[in-house]
Amino acid sequence: MSPLSASSATGPGAEVTFRTARAEAEARDRADPLGHFRQRFLLSEGTVNFDGNSLGSMPRAVAERMECVLKQEWADGLIRSWGGAEWFRLPEIVGDRIAPLVGAGPGEIVVGDSTSVNLFKCMAAALAMRPERRVLVVQADNFPTDNYIAQGLAGLAPGLTLRVAETGQALLDAIDSSVAAVVLSHVHYRTAAIEDMEAVNRVAGAAGALTVWDLSHSTGAVAVDLRGSGADFAVGCTYKYLNGGPGAPAFCWVAARHLAEVRQPLSGWMGHQAPFAFDFDYRPAEGIRRFVCGTPQILSLSALDESLKLWSEVDLPALFRKSRELTSFFMSLVEQTCAEYGLELLSPSDPARRGSHVILRGSNGLPVMRVLAAEGVIGDFRAPDGMRFGFAPLYIRFADVVRAVEALHLILATRAWDREEFNQTTVVT
Amino acid sequence: MSPLSASSATGPGAEVTFRTARAEAEARDRADPLGHFRQRFLLSEGTVNFDGNSLGSMPRAVAERMECVLKQEWADGLIRSWGGAEWFRLPEIVGDRIAPLVGAGPGEIVVGDSTSVNLFKCMAAALAMRPERRVLVVQADNFPTDNYIAQGLAGLAPGLTLRVAETGQALLDAIDSSVAAVVLSHVHYRTAAIEDMEAVNRVAGAAGALTVWDLSHSTGAVAVDLRGSGADFAVGCTYKYLNGGPGAPAFCWVAARHLAEVRQPLSGWMGHQAPFAFDFDYRPAEGIRRFVCGTPQILSLSALDESLKLWSEVDLPALFRKSRELTSFFMSLVEQTCAEYGLELLSPSDPARRGSHVILRGSNGLPVMRVLAAEGVIGDFRAPDGMRFGFAPLYIRFADVVRAVEALHLILATRAWDREEFNQTTVVT
Repeated sequence: MSPLSASSATGPGAEVTFRTARAEAEARDRADPLGHFRQRFLLSEGTVNFDGNSLGSMPRAVAERMECVLKQEWADGLIRSWGGAEWFRLPEIVGDRIAPLVGAGPGEIVVGDSTSVNLFKCMAAALAMRPERRVLVVQADNFPTDNYIAQGLAGLAPGLTLRVAETGQALLDAIDSSVAAVVLSHVHYRTAAIEDMEAVNRVAGAAGALTVWDLSHSTGAVAVDLRGSGADFAVGCTYKYLNGGPGAPAFCWVAARHLAEVRQPLSGWMGHQAPFAFDFDYRPAEGIRRFVCGTPQILSLSALDESLKLWSEVDLPALFRKSRELTSFFMSLVEQTCAEYGLELLSPSDPARRGSHVILRGSNGLPVMRVLAAEGVIGDFRAPDGMRFGFAPLYIRFADVVRAVEALHLILATRAWDREEFNQTTVVT
Repeated sequence: MSPLSASSATGPGAEVTFRTARAEAEARDRADPLGHFRQRFLLSEGTVNFDGNSLGSMPRAVAERMECVLKQEWADGLIRSWGGAEWFRLPEIVGDRIAPLVGAGPGEIVVGDSTSVNLFKCMAAALAMRPERRVLVVQADNFPTDNYIAQGLAGLAPGLTLRVAETGQALLDAIDSSVAAVVLSHVHYRTAAIEDMEAVNRVAGAAGALTVWDLSHSTGAVAVDLRGSGADFAVGCTYKYLNGGPGAPAFCWVAARHLAEVRQPLSGWMGHQAPFAFDFDYRPAEGIRRFVCGTPQILSLSALDESLKLWSEVDLPALFRKSRELTSFFMSLVEQTCAEYGLELLSPSDPARRGSHVILRGSNGLPVMRVLAAEGVIGDFRAPDGMRFGFAPLYIRFADVVRAVEALHLILATRAWDREEFNQTTVVT
């Protein structure tokens, strides 16, 4: 489609606001201590990825790594690369790279399988540790797969019931001595609201219940302290802020104090104590390795391994600060320029309670996001009415924020979403 | 290490045998209707992959495809590639490529997760279809992960017991009206013995039990007729004869007659009827899509998709015939030249009952396989005493067979395995 014309329907007030914002953004980008990371990514010309909370952009180093994995490790090394290229240990090697980002220690995380499969492992493991309790507390509005997996487990484990609670105090109130585990997200996938991890762990711990945290929207975006806050289990996605690539394998953490006793039912051979002894009986490997199930998907896992390398150079407090600054800047600019179009900000206004994305409610969210995407501003739509923008601090600039809000404002002001090709009811995947 | 000297300790009898075999091999390779496929693989210089039954060699087209997936689909297309590059449908697209190799129809297979995870889905689904039965029949010497997963499931589903049976008639005898499902391999991972699929399905069906077939060592090597033989469930590995790459995602098949009613407990969002509606309740997708769980690992899945493309050009009866000819040629040559070194052939002598690999028993198997590998003949060792050689018909030549047996003979004749660097007790992964 042809670009929108900037001359139409932008009032002089908005123009001044955007001009001021552009100047401010340029100054902030120049002063940004993380600004140099942007060149480590292969970014699409003319497009800004405001969906890094759904699929992070590609670190340039991944292409070269994949070439090496294909030609040297696979084609040339063949089966020998299980040892020679460390394929066998990769679930733990990659886990150790993630550990510092979530307040975990070395040897506490393995990577492989999907977030959904890891949720199943952790929920089942928690249930097995509390055999006399048959209640799982779940969040009413958690990301769907968390609850779908809890439902699948309930169908398999007789007598297991799900207690559905709203977030916040209602969730804490739902935890009593009948509860085996609480399954919840740290950063909410729609609103970006941060759950108080320490409070939930404390209340659960006092009731003898275990916690299973989904860190998918937290990891690499906000501070997480699994050990310090007394969490029991955690899983997380790696294709969002960790930039591991489409569908990159998920991670799984278990508190060190549980590792000696914990068992999980997806007891595949790669989590066996001696996979190549070909014993009849399953004996879990030492430590977190027992949460590995089948043979890991090495191409995807290697891409993630490479993507994670740059995190050792990142000043995490500076990253978390930039995340809050980007979302605050975006929200402020939207409020200043788009208020008259009936948008509603659903994300917390307190930056300390907010993850690294922002969701706006608007009556024409889906077609608006489609026009924005056609303009090179890639966010996403979350049914029923959410326009969601993610701000990955490693490659999003303050100038990009201004560009996004300018485009949004122009679309709303010119009703550009009201064209037939964008105004359809099906949901973009 | 330095190459073995061919002059030492090979008797004149063996020399004549090998000379004759080389001439025969050259003639057979020239006449091989599948010979041209070899150039489609990136094969290591000086090395022959007799472990294609463990990790198949790399089709050249994969490198180019991966470059496209990384730079165009991921870096440039970003989240839009879930629709635009068909990422969302890839589990089914890849499944449809596998279907003709195992006697399945279109829309009957999905690909994703590991073989272990898919075994769990199928066993749990079979149990749910036979709620009044609490026995799973498993093979005593099946590949370990099949039994480990059955053990994991038994720990979760109260009252479930595993009935362990030897292969063959003993297995058929173990199937009665208390049995929910029989879990077994079609081609045995050590001996390559083929189980009679039609007989097991018939006996199980008559007892009201379901069958769960592991086709990991069958697919792309021997004829499989899932529909025609009346099977119920099947899973299989794609990194062996299908050359999908290290840890490539596994496949999962369910008989069409079960698809309307079947449910599996790893009910992740990507198997939901409307993943982007973000409903609270899980509703399984139509058909086999409900066996997809979480977000598929797109890099690994794309490599597999590309690897599978060449199978549409393969004359399957010719491939299965070449498989039998390669293994027969190998076995015959070993018998003629290595008999005096105490080797024992454990694989069936009847080619119609044999998969595409051969296992030899010998007292120094591990160090022998290590010296062979150092000589560029890559097979593997399967504890406690198995020297295993796989013959992938798409890239293994008859001349390669002669080379392998000559190297083996020389190692045995010169006791080259008896050097300290090879003679260790740890198992090669």
